[in-house]
Amino acid sequence: MKMLFTTMAVALPAATAFAAEPIPADLRETALATFKALPSTTPAVANNPITPEKIALGKALFFDPRVSASGVLSCNSCHNLATGGDDNLETSIGHGWQKGPRNAPTVLNAIFNIAQFWDGRAEDLKAQAKGPVQAGVEMANTPGQVIATLKSMPQYVDWFNAAFTGGADRVTFDNLAKAVEAFEATLVTPAPFDAFLNGDDAAMTSEQKQGLTLFMNKGCSSCHAGMNVGGQDFYQFGLMEKPSADVLPEKDKGRFAVTNTADDSYVFRAAPLRNVALTAPYFHSGKVWDLKQAVAIMGTTQLGEELKEEEVDLLVAFLNSLTGKVPEVVLPILPAETATTPRPASQILGK
Amino acid sequence: MKMLFTTMAVALPAATAFAAEPIPADLRETALATFKALPSTTPAVANNPITPEKIALGKALFFDPRVSASGVLSCNSCHNLATGGDDNLETSIGHGWQKGPRNAPTVLNAIFNIAQFWDGRAEDLKAQAKGPVQAGVEMANTPGQVIATLKSMPQYVDWFNAAFTGGADRVTFDNLAKAVEAFEATLVTPAPFDAFLNGDDAAMTSEQKQGLTLFMNKGCSSCHAGMNVGGQDFYQFGLMEKPSADVLPEKDKGRFAVTNTADDSYVFRAAPLRNVALTAPYFHSGKVWDLKQAVAIMGTTQLGEELKEEEVDLLVAFLNSLTGKVPEVVLPILPAETATTPRPASQILGK
Repeated sequence: MKMLFTTMAVALPAATAFAAEPIPADLRETALATFKALPSTTPAVANNPITPEKIALGKALFFDPRVSASGVLSCNSCHNLATGGDDNLETSIGHGWQKGPRNAPTVLNAIFNIAQFWDGRAEDLKAQAKGPVQAGVEMANTPGQVIATLKSMPQYVDWFNAAFTGGADRVTFDNLAKAVEAFEATLVTPAPFDAFLNGDDAAMTSEQKQGLTLFMNKGCSSCHAGMNVGGQDFYQFGLMEKPSADVLPEKDKGRFAVTNTADDSYVFRAAPLRNVALTAPYFHSGKVWDLKQAVAIMGTTQLGEELKEEEVDLLVAFLNSLTGKVPEVVLPILPAETATTPRPASQILGK
Repeated sequence: MKMLFTTMAVALPAATAFAAEPIPADLRETALATFKALPSTTPAVANNPITPEKIALGKALFFDPRVSASGVLSCNSCHNLATGGDDNLETSIGHGWQKGPRNAPTVLNAIFNIAQFWDGRAEDLKAQAKGPVQAGVEMANTPGQVIATLKSMPQYVDWFNAAFTGGADRVTFDNLAKAVEAFEATLVTPAPFDAFLNGDDAAMTSEQKQGLTLFMNKGCSSCHAGMNVGGQDFYQFGLMEKPSADVLPEKDKGRFAVTNTADDSYVFRAAPLRNVALTAPYFHSGKVWDLKQAVAIMGTTQLGEELKEEEVDLLVAFLNSLTGKVPEVVLPILPAETATTPRPASQILGK
């Protein structure tokens, strides 16, 4: 004990040189009151039992560009599993090169969010999955056309029949959404932060622990809490001070469009912060590319405080401990089109 | 022997019911004089030693949308390994939703083609890889911008340094092209046809063997020969009869644009036929969606013969035996952007 204490004492000067916050002895316990480590198994999903067949079908659908009217865009186009589960664009490029209205959120760990989309208008991932397929600026397809496309390929019909029970016709838009949700439920990325929460003191650096301490002490964790360090509730963007108009465009009133309640003006789901270091640019507007700048903006707009550069650095160090291991995904081999597969609409629309 | 003979005799009526061509006893030997089975190992490539590090880097680059100016399009967008190594579009959709001039050929087994592109203007895959990156209607990028993008991510610099030797600066456009070629050299898809050529009589059905016989007897194999059952030389499209103007648009004179030789008017590289059942639509114009129709057009335009429906069916049966096993590809995890990574141009161009 004596020796350990001496070692720590020797290490202290270097640590205090940038220490904004002493690390409390009960950091793990305090953190566990606010956050939760990711589970080691695929989470159960309401009204959608997860099976290997459903996951495999969902993976095929997730990567299939023929789910879009153009035959060009797949779920993976904007929620790219190779780049943090999003597309690293301000807002996504969709059908006809149209620009979407909001930054694409990551699909990684999305299963743990209280609701989906920036304004929480979809209650879960199966509801969410139906949105982009039909949105004119995204995949621009119709449920009827998607199902006709899938039914034209016997392999897909077999896969739906293996993944679902009951009903003579299992190739349905509802089942498509459930399969995609099942695949997405597997996209869980355990990070150093989880290892720390699970008891491994060495999983996070001293700087990251200081950042975590600061994250809780400053009040960031009032909004960014739970399993996803965010994504668990809705809050006004600009609680203490309104962000600039480019970061918070006047016209996008967030959750107000969902609830039609004045209180919900400029209210958004707190961004889930897992893998945030991989998912620039930031905010629903996607206008901020630098994570430090994003943290500083949060300080002024949400905490009413100009954070010191040293504090921002520590907070970013903590956020880096949320970068997790993306599960290995083998690219699916998709069924070939047949004579009855509808032709891609890109050929009609293309310049 | 007697018993075997009897069994065959009994089976004959069913077989002859659709037999257009008796299967010669020396079919394998005859076929081996014209075709060649795929190798069981990754092929060596001229001026580009293949190493695991180079393959891994090439895979990352192949899937990285940040190689394009928009940050939207990767090699895999048009040469999708989930859908036969192409995009199943008439012609590809590129930067700004522009439509490309010719149908995207499959990247599968492309390493064995005599030259790349429909007109063979690139002598190999490393030369080919540089084309779409810079083409205005495809990725619309510049070598300088691509390299600046890659250099902004330390992980990429490490990967280039591990994949290449010599020179202080190994993150170069030439090395990018070589790495992509190295990955593409692994995209080899052994098929039932290869198993047959290698000695397995049961690998192809009787119908497929009849189709192969017909393919050689009719003269298809005069142009579609070698390891890729095509892709080994250049021929005029419309040798016996000019195809309709939608299939062979007047303005695209094929290899003439490369050689400026009158003889090369409407000359194209014979389409490599491996995985052809997965790569509709067909021809450089991408105007024909049905493989049977494509075969029939080849009959009239190249052989000067209207093939019987039964013959077309047998030929298509043979072509189906060229559908191979795509190697398992684990989606790469790409490096995250940094503060110095150039911003995607889609944000400037987007509507």
